[in-house]
Amino acid sequence: MSRAYNFCAGPATLPESVLRQARDEMLDWRGTGMSVMEMSHRSDEFVQIAETAEKDLRELAGVSDDYAVLFMQGGASSQFSTIPLNLLGDKGSADYVNTGIWSKKAIAEASRYGQVNVVASSEDSGFTTIPDQAAWKTSAEAAYLHYTPNETIGGLEFDFVPDSPNVPLVADMSSNMLSRPVDVSRFGLIYAGAQKNIGPSGLVVVIIRKDLLGKARKETPTMMNYQVIADNDSMYNTPATYSWYLAGLVFKWLKEQGGVQAMGEINLRKARKLYDFIDNSDFYANPIDPRFRSWMNVPFTLADDALNSEFLRGANACGLLNLAGHRSVGGMRASIYNAMPEAGVDALIDYMTDFAKERG
Amino acid sequence: MSRAYNFCAGPATLPESVLRQARDEMLDWRGTGMSVMEMSHRSDEFVQIAETAEKDLRELAGVSDDYAVLFMQGGASSQFSTIPLNLLGDKGSADYVNTGIWSKKAIAEASRYGQVNVVASSEDSGFTTIPDQAAWKTSAEAAYLHYTPNETIGGLEFDFVPDSPNVPLVADMSSNMLSRPVDVSRFGLIYAGAQKNIGPSGLVVVIIRKDLLGKARKETPTMMNYQVIADNDSMYNTPATYSWYLAGLVFKWLKEQGGVQAMGEINLRKARKLYDFIDNSDFYANPIDPRFRSWMNVPFTLADDALNSEFLRGANACGLLNLAGHRSVGGMRASIYNAMPEAGVDALIDYMTDFAKERG
Repeated sequence: MSRAYNFCAGPATLPESVLRQARDEMLDWRGTGMSVMEMSHRSDEFVQIAETAEKDLRELAGVSDDYAVLFMQGGASSQFSTIPLNLLGDKGSADYVNTGIWSKKAIAEASRYGQVNVVASSEDSGFTTIPDQAAWKTSAEAAYLHYTPNETIGGLEFDFVPDSPNVPLVADMSSNMLSRPVDVSRFGLIYAGAQKNIGPSGLVVVIIRKDLLGKARKETPTMMNYQVIADNDSMYNTPATYSWYLAGLVFKWLKEQGGVQAMGEINLRKARKLYDFIDNSDFYANPIDPRFRSWMNVPFTLADDALNSEFLRGANACGLLNLAGHRSVGGMRASIYNAMPEAGVDALIDYMTDFAKERG
Repeated sequence: MSRAYNFCAGPATLPESVLRQARDEMLDWRGTGMSVMEMSHRSDEFVQIAETAEKDLRELAGVSDDYAVLFMQGGASSQFSTIPLNLLGDKGSADYVNTGIWSKKAIAEASRYGQVNVVASSEDSGFTTIPDQAAWKTSAEAAYLHYTPNETIGGLEFDFVPDSPNVPLVADMSSNMLSRPVDVSRFGLIYAGAQKNIGPSGLVVVIIRKDLLGKARKETPTMMNYQVIADNDSMYNTPATYSWYLAGLVFKWLKEQGGVQAMGEINLRKARKLYDFIDNSDFYANPIDPRFRSWMNVPFTLADDALNSEFLRGANACGLLNLAGHRSVGGMRASIYNAMPEAGVDALIDYMTDFAKERG
């Protein structure tokens, strides 16, 4: 088929123009006679690619020189250990907010390295809302305060940045990085697996306030030591060069779209359109507190679960792919990251309309 | 320029046919309407790609069912910690052979986790030879015996597999994996960063005897726990899917070339040609004990170091790229991995001949 609309939660759809450029440069990057994936990471060409990507990311996200930007290998799951190993220090405890499956994974891994205090949880609600910050039982003694701004599986997204003036705020932005403006200066550390809004899997971007470097525990594997990675411009070992290059192409594309301000407006419009359609339907439903509905991941159910397979088959036939919900929750989920064009959301709504008419 | 001959030590040249296929499939993998890098790692399509790659690797390298094959994120440097964390167990000590810069890095990292006994070293010779195994001071109590079959920087390669009937043998094959036949059954663990003979950087292949699984220390980050990775078919988290796909294309290409037996013959011929030329020249020299010269990385010096820059400029102008030696040793180095065609070696020899005539 020609290009489909791919609603996969990650690895996820990439901008078509980025893939076209990657395709055109595959055998010969700008007259060098090499693919980017064949370049030494220490070559002038690749260093230029890497530095440009960092510069563009800093510009897009508004990252000041108080922060280091790291392009590390792995993904959020490896950061779940890397963060406590680097930040727990002699404090020994950290505060975590539990808003869903990814929060829980982060909590489970951190608990292996120190005392984790779950200072708030929306588990009682089935993770359909975000607990009011006024009720969080945070501690001034915590090494950091961790939360998950967007729960990819649950489709639950913070519409505010928690206040944490004295304890460094740490955020897993894997699924909403660069999707709308965020004030980076309020964070100690932001991390994001690339495979949703940034590029291919295997790369994780870490933005860390420089005063938090240099506190890693003795047993921290060298490749997980933020200070080492920062001191070596993410090239202590051979980084994931091709993923880094693709991330750079995505950053350029984001700048062409008008940056995260423009992206946020588009994303809000896309999400609203889909939620409004669901809310106005008797056939589809979304259980999340409207205030905290994710702009990136839209889970929904059909009035009759027995129709799920037919819905998915029909969607596939129309080139609307990967709408099945996560295996842990079932139902449907449409991931509509930055790279999902508004036309893809429109096509999905058209299909959902027809399906509900025929089967509802 | 058109495709150059790229002698980079890593990331390194890839087979042109692999890059052409990756280019042609970039926007739409076999009618799915998606790039491989946009596919869910749990989709039928990607699972098929992943399983085929593993099957082809098992066939190429002769890996029996006694071994798990893992496609992990990172590279050899991350394995330098992963190995002691997983294998030291209650033994507390491991034996390491020191034959160059990569051995030393492995030793330094392992020393952070337990007692490392350097059972043999060729440092006195300037790492120009391999110590005779009869003189190695190995211990029956060691958790494992680690060595580096090919030193990428020094250009020093074992022509034998050490005997280690009772202690698991661990080998960093980053730079000579699949370059010639090797009896996998003699190893406890083989690992290889992909970016030399396998694919793009960011992926490391681990072949581990199954009885060595399940011994990780408590503090091992989950993403470094071999047992967890094996139990989840390398998909505990999102793996480096695109690199895995490219590795699979390289494995297919290797099979088309006749597998590692045929590759070994070609590699020996390429290496011999270049070493013979160097040995017969008054202008070029290679310091390595002829028995242990690497088939993959051929360092050489010019009679006058002052000519190095001119040599490199002229080479670049002829499309012979990345011949500078590692920054730690200087001189020249031609990396001639599987994907370097014999014509590339011929072109290099032609250039070296002309340069020596003009400047020698």
